[in-house]
Amino acid sequence: MRQQVGTNLPKVGSYNQNVVLDAIRSSGTTSRVELAERTGLTPQTISVIVRRLLAGGLVREDGAQPPAGSSGGGKPRTTLRVEPTAGYAVGVHFDPGQIGAVLVDMAGTVLAETRRGVHAGLGPEEAVALMGRAVRKVVRAAAIPPRRMLGVGLACPGPIDQELGLVLYPPRLAGWDRVPLAAMLERATGSRVIMDNDATAAAIGERWSGVAKNIGNFAYIYMGTGIGGGLFLSNQVYRGPFRNAAEIGHVVAAPDGPPCYCGNRGCLEAVACPAAMVADARRLLAGGAGGALAAAYAKDPGSVDHEALCGAAAAGDELARSVVDRVAAHLSNAAVSVTNMLDVELLVLGGPALGAVGEIYRAAVAEALAARPIARHIHRVPVALSPAGGGAAAIGGASLVFHHAFAPQLTTLLSPTAPAVAPRGAHQ
Amino acid sequence: MRQQVGTNLPKVGSYNQNVVLDAIRSSGTTSRVELAERTGLTPQTISVIVRRLLAGGLVREDGAQPPAGSSGGGKPRTTLRVEPTAGYAVGVHFDPGQIGAVLVDMAGTVLAETRRGVHAGLGPEEAVALMGRAVRKVVRAAAIPPRRMLGVGLACPGPIDQELGLVLYPPRLAGWDRVPLAAMLERATGSRVIMDNDATAAAIGERWSGVAKNIGNFAYIYMGTGIGGGLFLSNQVYRGPFRNAAEIGHVVAAPDGPPCYCGNRGCLEAVACPAAMVADARRLLAGGAGGALAAAYAKDPGSVDHEALCGAAAAGDELARSVVDRVAAHLSNAAVSVTNMLDVELLVLGGPALGAVGEIYRAAVAEALAARPIARHIHRVPVALSPAGGGAAAIGGASLVFHHAFAPQLTTLLSPTAPAVAPRGAHQ
Repeated sequence: MRQQVGTNLPKVGSYNQNVVLDAIRSSGTTSRVELAERTGLTPQTISVIVRRLLAGGLVREDGAQPPAGSSGGGKPRTTLRVEPTAGYAVGVHFDPGQIGAVLVDMAGTVLAETRRGVHAGLGPEEAVALMGRAVRKVVRAAAIPPRRMLGVGLACPGPIDQELGLVLYPPRLAGWDRVPLAAMLERATGSRVIMDNDATAAAIGERWSGVAKNIGNFAYIYMGTGIGGGLFLSNQVYRGPFRNAAEIGHVVAAPDGPPCYCGNRGCLEAVACPAAMVADARRLLAGGAGGALAAAYAKDPGSVDHEALCGAAAAGDELARSVVDRVAAHLSNAAVSVTNMLDVELLVLGGPALGAVGEIYRAAVAEALAARPIARHIHRVPVALSPAGGGAAAIGGASLVFHHAFAPQLTTLLSPTAPAVAPRGAHQ
Repeated sequence: MRQQVGTNLPKVGSYNQNVVLDAIRSSGTTSRVELAERTGLTPQTISVIVRRLLAGGLVREDGAQPPAGSSGGGKPRTTLRVEPTAGYAVGVHFDPGQIGAVLVDMAGTVLAETRRGVHAGLGPEEAVALMGRAVRKVVRAAAIPPRRMLGVGLACPGPIDQELGLVLYPPRLAGWDRVPLAAMLERATGSRVIMDNDATAAAIGERWSGVAKNIGNFAYIYMGTGIGGGLFLSNQVYRGPFRNAAEIGHVVAAPDGPPCYCGNRGCLEAVACPAAMVADARRLLAGGAGGALAAAYAKDPGSVDHEALCGAAAAGDELARSVVDRVAAHLSNAAVSVTNMLDVELLVLGGPALGAVGEIYRAAVAEALAARPIARHIHRVPVALSPAGGGAAAIGGASLVFHHAFAPQLTTLLSPTAPAVAPRGAHQ
């Protein structure tokens, strides 16, 4: 993984084809002329690649339109767009608390979804059976042609061994140790399974069809039971040489803070995850504070949960809001550090734990990124909430399949092994 | 900068040639068989490229050696290495306090150096005149053939606009605002000048000929008047889309810490730069502490400086050591955050402000990286002191020239413009 390798013509051909497909995808609609400008490829190369994409059914050509700014003269341009029905993927999100699945088309539209809670202490066999059932359910609901089903993408809590498809030793799944979850789900579904951790999957989903479609460098902060992260740098998923990068939840947020399960101290996750927030709220409630939340939980302050806390904060309860603001300040510090380190163009917040307070976090982080990064005079870093809400990891799971098949990846262009198989059109 | 672009055959040829040269450089000595294994290129391609490198004088071939592990039979292998005399570069380090220059050969050996202090309030014209004089001095001292002089690399305090060769608004150079330093130094020396900030230059120097020769992913923390950083990710310098990445000095180290000149609060630089250390020591001395440093500065605690402080800490003075340990703790937190974010293989500490306490910092950061990163069970991240000492930025400056001409760069492979000129042999 540390070696710098050369490349060759077949790899370049496959890479260029994916570059063109990616440019079409991220543009929405575009023309051959624009594709040549955007990709730096010659009009001849664009023409050959587009013909191949059309023949493979991956792209559709819409009727001729006059060129922008023309008064009707000149050669009309036809527009190209990704063919949404060219292929479908199922995304599965496995979380210690629930299992969700979505069926998504090539354009990123969710056609079917399902979700169910699971009990703590769930074992791998039972989990895989539930995931398999969820996959069958969304496939049936969407009624897609089986031959256009490209595969299943599985988003699950880290740490994982992506190459071997193992869940390694998730902090919140006792007894799960090096479980070959990808292979088990392949057996249960009969589909190829691509696995990644939930935060990376969510980031890839945002790039494939969300708020980061056109963004080459962004950081994703995923707020779930824990806090994870995903990074796109120079148009590529950045995983690091040992595939453990983007652990934004374990940036030091409070140097004298509490120990984190990871072995570090004062991690962002340790001070800002739902459990830390709830502990904080219970402490404040037990201290005899006033307000709506205190009144509602007067009898049993220990029973307040994350959902109630976020709901109260969104409704203006002062105590709840102070807990949320403290988390927003930690998120802001981490976001400033990430921005100063990586000079990203966009920061995305997503995941189920945003709950009712996502906009409070977004506004606080946006204010910090407008005022504090060293390069703020050169460019403003916007902050976006994932439009996928709590479904970000499941949609991300589906995008793992598309990303693997169709994104232009340097790991393929510069792989020391034989060239990857050229992308297949789903119609072939 | 956000677009994903394709590539073509001429760019691939040029890129592959640099991949091979880089593999030879980082190996020290190697063979054609090893090159094929390492680069993933075919033996035929290796053979063609090596012939070209030999003809260009960039590489030399040493006598036949029996293959490793053989008992004398089999076809003997000839070994290849970079020809140190193939080209030379001058590195200039411009610092608000001094100007240094080195002359370096292709193998990274320093053949001549010079350094002089400069007064505060130095203007651009005077600075360029002094830099030009330093360049001429080292070129004369090394007596190299003028036609093998590849250029001048200028390492200077950020922020800079690298493409335009401008020093933007360095915090410690009052009145320097968008100074076209690269163009001015080109006029003064008659050589092509490549400019970068001091920390990035130092990181490139470490990769070219220092402790990171073989490392694809590392972070460099540069301790000078301020604290800068450099990043190599996936074998490439990572600059970020707006070229302001790797500002490790502006990671939030103390959330409630003092304001930093950059506009942020509690930055690593604000709590760990030499000026902060000296202020800390003066405060402790004024508070009536004991020990050798206190005795030496009993009459005027306000006159203690960074060098005296570090010297006392290295000699075991308790007060001085407490100041240094505090800085080491901040560095350790930042190093853990960077490691959890980027999963690097190596962390390098360098720069003039390491002074006498570099090893104290190195040991503390190494201890933290052994115990705290989330992936520590998967791989240990070593911590290295730059062997270049206070000369890291000047040597890095020279390596900018070699890196620009000979490193396999994705920005060239994947540039939307015409292919870069194929690397020239210095003998042509």
